[in-house]
Amino acid sequence: MIVVMKSDSTRGDIDRILERLTRVNLSGHLSQGVERTVIGVVGETQLHPELRNELELMAGVEDVVSISKPYKLASREFQPADTVIEVGNVKIGGGDLVVMAGPCAVESERQVIETARAVKAAGATVLRGGAFKPRSSPYTFRGMGEEGLKILAKARAETGMPIITEVLSPQDVELVARYADILQLGARNMQNYILLDEVGKTRMPVMLKRGLSATIQEWLLSAEYILAQGNRQVMLCERGIRTFETYTRNTMDVSAIPSAHRLSHLPVIADPSHGTGKWYLVPPLALASVAAGADGLMVEVHPSPDQAVSDGAQSLTFENFSKMMVQVKLIHNLFRSDTVAAT
Amino acid sequence: MIVVMKSDSTRGDIDRILERLTRVNLSGHLSQGVERTVIGVVGETQLHPELRNELELMAGVEDVVSISKPYKLASREFQPADTVIEVGNVKIGGGDLVVMAGPCAVESERQVIETARAVKAAGATVLRGGAFKPRSSPYTFRGMGEEGLKILAKARAETGMPIITEVLSPQDVELVARYADILQLGARNMQNYILLDEVGKTRMPVMLKRGLSATIQEWLLSAEYILAQGNRQVMLCERGIRTFETYTRNTMDVSAIPSAHRLSHLPVIADPSHGTGKWYLVPPLALASVAAGADGLMVEVHPSPDQAVSDGAQSLTFENFSKMMVQVKLIHNLFRSDTVAAT
Amino acid sequence: MIVVMKSDSTRGDIDRILERLTRVNLSGHLSQGVERTVIGVVGETQLHPELRNELELMAGVEDVVSISKPYKLASREFQPADTVIEVGNVKIGGGDLVVMAGPCAVESERQVIETARAVKAAGATVLRGGAFKPRSSPYTFRGMGEEGLKILAKARAETGMPIITEVLSPQDVELVARYADILQLGARNMQNYILLDEVGKTRMPVMLKRGLSATIQEWLLSAEYILAQGNRQVMLCERGIRTFETYTRNTMDVSAIPSAHRLSHLPVIADPSHGTGKWYLVPPLALASVAAGADGLMVEVHPSPDQAVSDGAQSLTFENFSKMMVQVKLIHNLFRSDTVAAT
Amino acid sequence: MIVVMKSDSTRGDIDRILERLTRVNLSGHLSQGVERTVIGVVGETQLHPELRNELELMAGVEDVVSISKPYKLASREFQPADTVIEVGNVKIGGGDLVVMAGPCAVESERQVIETARAVKAAGATVLRGGAFKPRSSPYTFRGMGEEGLKILAKARAETGMPIITEVLSPQDVELVARYADILQLGARNMQNYILLDEVGKTRMPVMLKRGLSATIQEWLLSAEYILAQGNRQVMLCERGIRTFETYTRNTMDVSAIPSAHRLSHLPVIADPSHGTGKWYLVPPLALASVAAGADGLMVEVHPSPDQAVSDGAQSLTFENFSKMMVQVKLIHNLFRSDTVAAT
Repeated sequence: MIVVMKSDSTRGDIDRILERLTRVNLSGHLSQGVERTVIGVVGETQLHPELRNELELMAGVEDVVSISKPYKLASREFQPADTVIEVGNVKIGGGDLVVMAGPCAVESERQVIETARAVKAAGATVLRGGAFKPRSSPYTFRGMGEEGLKILAKARAETGMPIITEVLSPQDVELVARYADILQLGARNMQNYILLDEVGKTRMPVMLKRGLSATIQEWLLSAEYILAQGNRQVMLCERGIRTFETYTRNTMDVSAIPSAHRLSHLPVIADPSHGTGKWYLVPPLALASVAAGADGLMVEVHPSPDQAVSDGAQSLTFENFSKMMVQVKLIHNLFRSDTVAAT
Repeated sequence: MIVVMKSDSTRGDIDRILERLTRVNLSGHLSQGVERTVIGVVGETQLHPELRNELELMAGVEDVVSISKPYKLASREFQPADTVIEVGNVKIGGGDLVVMAGPCAVESERQVIETARAVKAAGATVLRGGAFKPRSSPYTFRGMGEEGLKILAKARAETGMPIITEVLSPQDVELVARYADILQLGARNMQNYILLDEVGKTRMPVMLKRGLSATIQEWLLSAEYILAQGNRQVMLCERGIRTFETYTRNTMDVSAIPSAHRLSHLPVIADPSHGTGKWYLVPPLALASVAAGADGLMVEVHPSPDQAVSDGAQSLTFENFSKMMVQVKLIHNLFRSDTVAAT
Repeated sequence: MIVVMKSDSTRGDIDRILERLTRVNLSGHLSQGVERTVIGVVGETQLHPELRNELELMAGVEDVVSISKPYKLASREFQPADTVIEVGNVKIGGGDLVVMAGPCAVESERQVIETARAVKAAGATVLRGGAFKPRSSPYTFRGMGEEGLKILAKARAETGMPIITEVLSPQDVELVARYADILQLGARNMQNYILLDEVGKTRMPVMLKRGLSATIQEWLLSAEYILAQGNRQVMLCERGIRTFETYTRNTMDVSAIPSAHRLSHLPVIADPSHGTGKWYLVPPLALASVAAGADGLMVEVHPSPDQAVSDGAQSLTFENFSKMMVQVKLIHNLFRSDTVAAT
Repeated sequence: MIVVMKSDSTRGDIDRILERLTRVNLSGHLSQGVERTVIGVVGETQLHPELRNELELMAGVEDVVSISKPYKLASREFQPADTVIEVGNVKIGGGDLVVMAGPCAVESERQVIETARAVKAAGATVLRGGAFKPRSSPYTFRGMGEEGLKILAKARAETGMPIITEVLSPQDVELVARYADILQLGARNMQNYILLDEVGKTRMPVMLKRGLSATIQEWLLSAEYILAQGNRQVMLCERGIRTFETYTRNTMDVSAIPSAHRLSHLPVIADPSHGTGKWYLVPPLALASVAAGADGLMVEVHPSPDQAVSDGAQSLTFENFSKMMVQVKLIHNLFRSDTVAAT
């Protein structure tokens, strides 16, 4: 932490700051510039998260600048090697490419099983499907609940694919954990800290979607919540951020993939379905994400997108999904041995 | 709802759409333009929330445009008269100005009671204070919990001021409701639908903060969740949105105040503390909000902001709060009889 | 400037940085923390704008943090007293309130003179009107050019009001300066540096609108361009920034008014017409801006907004403008002696 | 265009609108819904760009919705086949991949020629370099001007590579056009309409960068300005947009590449250097852009990035550029015959 003094600060102002630092076993190194004095704070500032605020309000202080990252367990410095999460036979992170595909919402046993078979045939290795759906209007279908989870479990039994499904509420963590292989935390819940705590207490793989307006740093801080509870099986998911552009549903931040890889050891999945909101943009953004180093894709696939009860506009047909998978594999194979991501 | 056909759509495409509408008891009126055909959908489209999606994917369709608002109970059309919420002697909405003030977080009995007395003396009528705090880092103080609620209740007993405090989780609604007079839903929980449902089931006044990247329409849709459960005592709170600007913590969207008033009958409170993140911007933005027609203010006040465990940088001292209140009352009195808000 | 070293940086890395600083007559003060070393750079770093970049790429460097503001002439530190610009009898800055009103685009002599008389009667003291219009589509009316300037000059002769009008291009500066009293630089040209240079070379008052996605710092840097050419008669204009919200045309950043006042001595005008894009939001945002300490308002007024060739949706009728002005004066008088803005 | 009437509009309101439409040879088709009436406007509405505004303000009107695109010459509907621009032997658009590389700013003959040789050896086919630089601070190096253009011309003579360089001002178009093969319009000038007109009057290839906060539609409207002057050799360049994220300099909108391809026939170049602002993110985003269907890349390369006078932090060394080019070619070859972009 660096304390930047105002150009008209006094010796007394500086002394009061040094004294305050001493009280919490930190020390300050002065740098006297031409225009102003700067105090470098030395010691374990992370143990005093509120100190910055306090210093900012002290007399003579112009600004306080943080220089360490506020997360630790999620950082690449803390753990240089990639985290690899194993779900059944599927490895997530560390060079493999996982493809999670399936319908946005579970609608019927037939729909799910038909889709599971189709996406498996095309190369997907995890089945996605929502039983609890966060919807912006209270008048929209909010998911089948436990009934939906049972359908997913049947599809797993049928196809052998592990399943990922969203949990919306702390009370439901136990229920969802009973059926799912990976718990999904949605964008709207990225800062639902009670829910983060709760999934942190399980020992299950968790996929944490980036919030609509979350910075990469806030995303990693939310991952830190889960990690801090002792659950180290966390993967991140970039799914588009909110910007001024309205042509796409969100703006897919492809640069967040190599950025997160540089800052953190956690696997990064890309969701071009929510990232773009338009089915015809899903394949190019899926390919772009893999080229940028994504550890996996999450894609919405539906037997008849025009009859989907949710997000049909961004769902692929079986045929389009299969075509896309051919290209996805080509790109991934290209860089299998060689790493594309920034390191 | 309007279905815009592509310039090369066929008569068959149009017939299939008309037929689909008929199946759900809607009808379509054709407008044949020079370049393209447009179909106006007639009937209660709100009952078919998924139809838009379905139509968008049908052959020959270029675009589908919604023309009705997706919320109903929250709309000014549904209820032309302002909602007025009574909390003890305090009226919120309908021309009065409520000022909710107090510390960001409850830290001690002394801090809360001292602050309560000071803000009451300056003209505040509701006491705010957080017992459950949403914090971006897991390593930061997360509030005193029920202990904090008890302190707030003591301050109420002492001063007679009703209290507003945040509830973070569906499980805590009952607990918080036992102590609070107004339940606060924070920005990060604006789309925590399970929590919205839960506070909707109570019959207590609720203040719903706008999400960091929520449009005014999404904010009203979240209010609709609470209203749809039968709880009509909902007030909105503008607290700044996330933009590219970094000088302020958030960008306070003052125009959201008259906009929400035009679209909805619900009272609108302004929170310039979170809206700006800097104590010296709180008074000008408080005055601006009142001038723009806000029904109330929520302001962070602390006996010694430089020792606050949370958000000290945006907290006012007792003295600054008192000075600000003088000006706030002057502006509010100016327009008491006369309405400034857009109508 | 602060150079933050990586936790694994070597003594050699540090020495190379110190040596580099010495070469340009700067020096470095070391602060050895528990985890990392920080180097405070001492000396006139503003004279070496590219140094930061260079340091960032040197071995062992984690980050380089700037601590001085990149603008000087525009800063409150450089000139503590408010800049006051005199245009005829009108004073801009320093406590007075200037109201600039008139049509978006000059359409005819009758339209302009009629409007000039009406806004003058209601209390406006500067006449606005566009002769050169920046339009997003090449197929839209782009202004009457010099003919329009002549009409504005006639309106000035008729009413005695000084005129403000936009200049779009370096070549037109001389022409527009021949007719105008204040040169307006539009939001889209805030970073048209050739144009900034050119108006900087005149000795005329200039109003610099904030760019759609410009930070306050970039806005002040653009003002610095004009000031650096020797033209000290610069006023700023907040006119809304681009965000994700679509209900309003832009999001009016009311907090930019007191923020710019704190950082700079230049007067700040508010433009609620472009700031909101909806006529019914103009009065509440005008009042809000004055309450937040704006030195003036710029408002679009048209005899028949529904027949305006440009921006009719955000233009006030004469009647609505007059009503608004009554309230604007009330608020301004309230704080005449007493300053509301953050100081 | 669709006129949505308020639920309480009268027959008189509707008649006045129909009458107004008739006056400009348009007609209106009524759709009488349960709650409201909707009027579909039939005829060539593009010829009446101001009509929308007028209608919005008429009595009884709730909203007016545009349904045609505001640009024509730039649209895929107007010209279904890809535009291919030939610059010497280089083809831009239509399946080939052009790589434009070189220093941000021209600093010396040696720097430019050395870089030109290196990037040519690695596979670049166009040389970039700035002689006129737009800089946010007036105190920074603003380019070598004509001297810089001469150096670029020498590098072309030496290597045979065509050159692309930025033009900042209408007065400089003739000068820059004398030396350059492709004129570059920067992000800050995307809505400098006078400059767009001026480059439109030349018959030279133009690369139009997307503005920091420009929607895809506004970008295409700016291209329309150039096309409307008769210059059909326009290519687009995605270079990142401004969002709330601060880790990257801009947020590269990779989805804009396939989106622009769907909406328009113009070639789309990607600039990951400005798009990310960090050299280590350039390769993954370059690969992502090619995978998403970009027709080319523009990349900053410098012999010693740590000594660059501009944008060193985002410049690649020769070695990193060469490594990246190997991968870029692999991905491009993968999809040469087969098109990845959404169609």
